Amino acid sequence: MLNLKHLPINSFNENIAYLHKDCTAYRVDDIKSLSKIEIHGGVKPVYAFLQIVDDDKLVRPNELALNTEAFKLINLPEGANVTLTMSPPPPSLNSIKRKIAGNILSSGEYSAIVNDIASKRYTNMDIASFLVSAGSFMTAPEVLAFTEALVGDNIIRWDNENIVVDHHCLGGIPGNKTDIIIMAIVAAYGLPMPKTASRSLTSCAGVADTMSVLANVDMDENKFRKVVGDCRGAIACYNALSIAEANKIISAVERYIGITQHQYIVSSILAIKLAAGVTHLVIDIPVGPKSRIKTTNDAMRLRKLIEYVGDMLSVEVDAVITDGSEPIGNGIGAVLEARDVMKVLRNKDDAPQDLREKSLFLAGRVLEFDPKLRGGQGYYVAKELLNSGRALEAMNKIIHAQGKAPQPQLGHLTRDVVATAAGVVESIDNERINKIGVLAGASKYQGAGLDLLKKVGDKVEQGETLYRLHSVNSTDFAFANSVVDGYTGYEISGRSVY
Amino acid sequence: MLNLKHLPINSFNENIAYLHKDCTAYRVDDIKSLSKIEIHGGVKPVYAFLQIVDDDKLVRPNELALNTEAFKLINLPEGANVTLTMSPPPPSLNSIKRKIAGNILSSGEYSAIVNDIASKRYTNMDIASFLVSAGSFMTAPEVLAFTEALVGDNIIRWDNENIVVDHHCLGGIPGNKTDIIIMAIVAAYGLPMPKTASRSLTSCAGVADTMSVLANVDMDENKFRKVVGDCRGAIACYNALSIAEANKIISAVERYIGITQHQYIVSSILAIKLAAGVTHLVIDIPVGPKSRIKTTNDAMRLRKLIEYVGDMLSVEVDAVITDGSEPIGNGIGAVLEARDVMKVLRNKDDAPQDLREKSLFLAGRVLEFDPKLRGGQGYYVAKELLNSGRALEAMNKIIHAQGKAPQPQLGHLTRDVVATAAGVVESIDNERINKIGVLAGASKYQGAGLDLLKKVGDKVEQGETLYRLHSVNSTDFAFANSVVDGYTGYEISGRSVY
Repeated sequence: MLNLKHLPINSFNENIAYLHKDCTAYRVDDIKSLSKIEIHGGVKPVYAFLQIVDDDKLVRPNELALNTEAFKLINLPEGANVTLTMSPPPPSLNSIKRKIAGNILSSGEYSAIVNDIASKRYTNMDIASFLVSAGSFMTAPEVLAFTEALVGDNIIRWDNENIVVDHHCLGGIPGNKTDIIIMAIVAAYGLPMPKTASRSLTSCAGVADTMSVLANVDMDENKFRKVVGDCRGAIACYNALSIAEANKIISAVERYIGITQHQYIVSSILAIKLAAGVTHLVIDIPVGPKSRIKTTNDAMRLRKLIEYVGDMLSVEVDAVITDGSEPIGNGIGAVLEARDVMKVLRNKDDAPQDLREKSLFLAGRVLEFDPKLRGGQGYYVAKELLNSGRALEAMNKIIHAQGKAPQPQLGHLTRDVVATAAGVVESIDNERINKIGVLAGASKYQGAGLDLLKKVGDKVEQGETLYRLHSVNSTDFAFANSVVDGYTGYEISGRSVY
Repeated sequence: MLNLKHLPINSFNENIAYLHKDCTAYRVDDIKSLSKIEIHGGVKPVYAFLQIVDDDKLVRPNELALNTEAFKLINLPEGANVTLTMSPPPPSLNSIKRKIAGNILSSGEYSAIVNDIASKRYTNMDIASFLVSAGSFMTAPEVLAFTEALVGDNIIRWDNENIVVDHHCLGGIPGNKTDIIIMAIVAAYGLPMPKTASRSLTSCAGVADTMSVLANVDMDENKFRKVVGDCRGAIACYNALSIAEANKIISAVERYIGITQHQYIVSSILAIKLAAGVTHLVIDIPVGPKSRIKTTNDAMRLRKLIEYVGDMLSVEVDAVITDGSEPIGNGIGAVLEARDVMKVLRNKDDAPQDLREKSLFLAGRVLEFDPKLRGGQGYYVAKELLNSGRALEAMNKIIHAQGKAPQPQLGHLTRDVVATAAGVVESIDNERINKIGVLAGASKYQGAGLDLLKKVGDKVEQGETLYRLHSVNSTDFAFANSVVDGYTGYEISGRSVY
């Protein structure tokens, strides 16, 4: 018997238990290496990684301390009596050894792996082992089985709806916040679009980051339901909803180790959308030499895999391969992107036309899921909804329902990056622009980013501004400037490319 | 600027840094996921995994706390001024992505990976990713490159010796402590045998565990040199020597995730032996259906890989495939194995003959590395050294030089496991016997284990004892008993197998 204590340490999803080296209930000397324990006393055993403490002020010999993650899970007060046993490795870890040896795993094995991850029986090390082992190859039925397992138990049901739509872009293109405009148009049309979106960690801004400039996105399921019920559309942050929980844990490790295989892109997107109750999904796959997907062949393989898994799980998927050769819209970074989105919705003269046209095209594809709509009419209906102001009206209603965000501040440290010679913008390097934006602070501060004043095909004079850098923090600003000095991301040619 | 603090938490090889959530020097809010930082202020930057603390008693907002591993590395007093930067992922992590994609890595890439592991730039998650990615395939030149990188900078040089021998067994066979007997015989002959050995975590006892019953094995390099210089032999615990450091970190993760690929067996053994300055090495590869290596084909592939890497790194390797169908010797667990070893060295009538014969055979192979010895004479010379008592004399001298260990205690909780019917012992299941021994406490207590009174081919009467279980701790004893009740590990047939 040990007394429970909370050590308020946040270890980013990993449960950690701390025992004193002279623990009264357990011979800590026996533990010579990494090991996992089961802590009993709560409703279900809690699995945690063990660390040994040599300081009575942190943990006394008759105490067992848990970090914040594990303490939350055990759901007992400090001082409660707990016992512990060594935790045998979860049997599903054997499947990882089978995968390394080149085997195809069964759906039962994927289900066991995902369940063990969801119940925190895997350490991050175990999850990394799984992702890397299955990263070298998975058959399409394996991706299906993995996706099905990731959907989890909690599925949001939209009881009175036959069609529940969503749109998702694979990303990799700076700017490109079509989703918010599409959602406004679709909601104005009347199809329910409960969009789940993520915050970004590696790019300048995720859809949830940009939307959060305009409205609160951290909604629970009830709030999400209410907004969609009242407004036909909403954008909720996926991490704030209690759905597809194992996928959240897996995604954090994926991002950490930088794994980006097709199978994980497909399983993660479809699992989240299925858990959100989506029945019809448009997926935008932008292709470009500096996009996430580099070749049309690659995009085609990904499209086929999405279609296969979607069909088997009864979600209607329309995967669209689009031009990902340059940023879409002018703003990069949450505040600047939100500005572009609102300009398009307000039909402003200076609204970025590429963002407007791409949004209309994709919104049209979403609308055509409606059997009542005549084939080929989607685009025109979308355009009418945008031009008439009905999309803006729907958007304002949604912002109000989700909870309007305070007026955002654009970073006041700025630099105009200028052309060193006259010519025509021949190309803009997405990866470079993204890197400059992240360094400028865009993944941390809403107001940081880049404002592109020139796009591909535009003529520029020597000394004319190509883009304006915005930072909130001077360290970020200095970093971004040094990278810009190396290479701006723009190629200018002396002759017209057209 | 932050003030350094030590949080005495042992995280088993992983460096952890703790920052207060309201840290005065760094916006902790920006950190939404797993991240690594570099801490500056010491001689070299220290890399650590970041965790966030919400308690001034653990870490104050103007402090940076390090766990025991990281605090030792930074080598500064508490209160010292340190600064921190976000650590970009080490570039060598890209090689892991290349490996997942099926590429062959260059020797430069292996060297970069191992260097980054040695300097603690990898988290355990990163190491697991590496091991799993390269676990599915490595070419022989890749194993060579990896081994060479693992040897590290500190190589023990035995300046006045042309030949420095060692013997290593791949393990998986309970008992089987030939190494200690071989070392005594070879030392008596006069060839230098600075044996490095490991403690076991997953089997009943490693060679270092068994030797530690007789003598101190935790020697530093100077002590190791002195004992070998004076006695021509010694057995040192590898973990206590400052050699092949990256391999120690990697081995802990390998054990944790249970990876056992050939490439890792070969690279680990040869790297340790090369770092210990060994020039001539006998490797025992026991094969049996319940051994670590199950088939002769598998053993042959392993032998070829060892020979290739050994040849390229100029260590003379004699890899011997032996019978691994049943335990070798009677005792299993450190104290019982040490008893067997001393019985053989003392030429006792009841010394286990299989252990004696196998040790003589392998010692003969080691001795034949001496160019002065006539081919085929090794076994007979070894036998003469054993029978004459000169091997025992060498052993006693070595025990004295390393530091005699206190008289060991055999576990006093015992159970005689008996035959349920008369017959002949047809087989003994190594894996089962190992499991029973581990559960009985053998991997934790020197005095726990099994004493086999019958071996394959022995006649048994109904009710006659097959083996005696020894435990130190009653929980272990109960566990082991319940497993024995399921299956003893012995197959008894009604008819003679011969």
